[in-house]
Amino acid sequence: MATLPRIGITMGDPAGIGPEIAVKALSDREIYRACRPLVLGDPNALTPFCETTPDIVLSEVESAEGAGERPGVLDVFSVSRLDPVLLRPGRPSLEGGKSMVSCVTRAVDLALERTLDAVVTGPISKVLMRRAGYTFEGHTELLAHRTGVEHVAMMLAGERLRVVLVTIHCALREVSDLLTEEKIHRTLSLADRGLRLDFGLASPRIAVAALNPHAGEQGLFGREETEIIAPAVHRARKDGLDANGPFPADTLFHAAESGQYDAVVCMYHDQGLIPLKLLHFADGVNVTLGLPIVRTSVDHGTAYDIAGRGIADPSSLKAAIHMAAEMAENRRKLRPLESS
Amino acid sequence: MATLPRIGITMGDPAGIGPEIAVKALSDREIYRACRPLVLGDPNALTPFCETTPDIVLSEVESAEGAGERPGVLDVFSVSRLDPVLLRPGRPSLEGGKSMVSCVTRAVDLALERTLDAVVTGPISKVLMRRAGYTFEGHTELLAHRTGVEHVAMMLAGERLRVVLVTIHCALREVSDLLTEEKIHRTLSLADRGLRLDFGLASPRIAVAALNPHAGEQGLFGREETEIIAPAVHRARKDGLDANGPFPADTLFHAAESGQYDAVVCMYHDQGLIPLKLLHFADGVNVTLGLPIVRTSVDHGTAYDIAGRGIADPSSLKAAIHMAAEMAENRRKLRPLESS
Repeated sequence: MATLPRIGITMGDPAGIGPEIAVKALSDREIYRACRPLVLGDPNALTPFCETTPDIVLSEVESAEGAGERPGVLDVFSVSRLDPVLLRPGRPSLEGGKSMVSCVTRAVDLALERTLDAVVTGPISKVLMRRAGYTFEGHTELLAHRTGVEHVAMMLAGERLRVVLVTIHCALREVSDLLTEEKIHRTLSLADRGLRLDFGLASPRIAVAALNPHAGEQGLFGREETEIIAPAVHRARKDGLDANGPFPADTLFHAAESGQYDAVVCMYHDQGLIPLKLLHFADGVNVTLGLPIVRTSVDHGTAYDIAGRGIADPSSLKAAIHMAAEMAENRRKLRPLESS
Repeated sequence: MATLPRIGITMGDPAGIGPEIAVKALSDREIYRACRPLVLGDPNALTPFCETTPDIVLSEVESAEGAGERPGVLDVFSVSRLDPVLLRPGRPSLEGGKSMVSCVTRAVDLALERTLDAVVTGPISKVLMRRAGYTFEGHTELLAHRTGVEHVAMMLAGERLRVVLVTIHCALREVSDLLTEEKIHRTLSLADRGLRLDFGLASPRIAVAALNPHAGEQGLFGREETEIIAPAVHRARKDGLDANGPFPADTLFHAAESGQYDAVVCMYHDQGLIPLKLLHFADGVNVTLGLPIVRTSVDHGTAYDIAGRGIADPSSLKAAIHMAAEMAENRRKLRPLESS
């Protein structure tokens, strides 16, 4: 049997629920049956949670070698050692912001050099990232930059539904102007490639959501369907993709959830996230398609309001770790020579 | 025991699935235990489906007196008698369009004079309505005009979720410009009043969805939350309403479905319809709030593509009839003198 994939887990903002859910997730021994986990983070932020969580002890490591192989031991690769004064739950600090970004860049570098088979990221704050001096819109843009990739797509995935977003973090009023045939076509290509490479689907069936209600009802409310979306779907079909639509968004997710499609390409954030979170409130996973590395993430935020209270739910992080392990295995099957 | 509410059911576009689902719904004797149904429609459109549906026969009536009291008998109040040549499933005609509108206006008039306790409408086509010379945007605008009401709100309702829309049939790119504090406040008031009057809730708990992803994430993607929506919620709370939000839309519907709220006020069509149809694909009901009459409707369209094939699902129409009956009963309880 091949060795289990080695997965780097970034702690996220130390003032959020990231450290708590990392500790809680790794106290579940199922994780160690699926992968070899290595946390990238700040030991001072993780220690308090290790002390109050049964079945887990912290161990600092200097390299990934041998890490993540002992259930009950949380191996941490230290990226900072913050003064405990700065580590107040719910109170983000610039130093914490820098540490949270360092976790990600270090993990990416280790994945690029193939020391890690996948990266799973904990929750960060976009506002804090900007305050700490970074210009990235979010995690995804940081990852694309660090891996030297121009185009990525965000997928949110659960057992019952997968959605891939064409536009993400922008005001709703800007969505229409941001949509182009090029961008939709590219998202379709990234979705198709990701479903083949990372999810092991030989012939992915992809649906495309319309932008306007009733898909514009024959042009009565909006022409983006006929002028932008349909041409992109047509181009993707000419490429050989099983791309379908655009379909009215209100009924499409029922069809997808019923098994008619492997993923739905959505025009804007809430179009995809509303159905995804309704079906997968606690166990949705954020996947970045188009990177040279496997990357998944929790699909929730830092939740400052409940940080440090011991009530954060690690379900999404656990699901993200399991999905990353499966994706790494799928890539290894398809690219045995590269990954060996 | 009080008599059962008398409910007028409009046939919808005769070229759509309306006649078929009306016949199928009334072949279910449960309907006659909840209400006294009277169909407003074209006998020539209904007859073929009565002939192929067991347990139902057609009976034309001249008045509502005594109608809907015999299970197995579909009492129809005729509004037209179209040449069968024009009655081709899936092929809408101008004459059919006029008939479909006449059903609605006749039903509304009978409800206004209290001959009917509620109106349930079958599916019409907005495009056909325009082609037939009417300037209404849809059913709802026609009903508001006919009842002399200026402001109404559309609710979509099922057992697990109710949503009320601030904007409805417009292009997504227009939504932001159409939102005003006044309109959101008015929708909140209509939602609150409807939940009390028609749904019998003494203290309705209402949530308001944000427009932008992450509710704008502190102004990073859009300012409608702080500038328009929050002030409207504040005003509603000053009126004494239990109005809450705006909340990020992606997680809100999980909270509502879990029982935290009795309804969610949504900024645009798909924001409300995506979660509603995911939870209530076949049995969602469209309710018009703010009318002097009770009105519910199927939440689907004419489905020309399957018209005449005998496979249309009457679930939404049946749910709409049952909900109208309950709403009529609730109004009768609250306004016993007016309704007696």
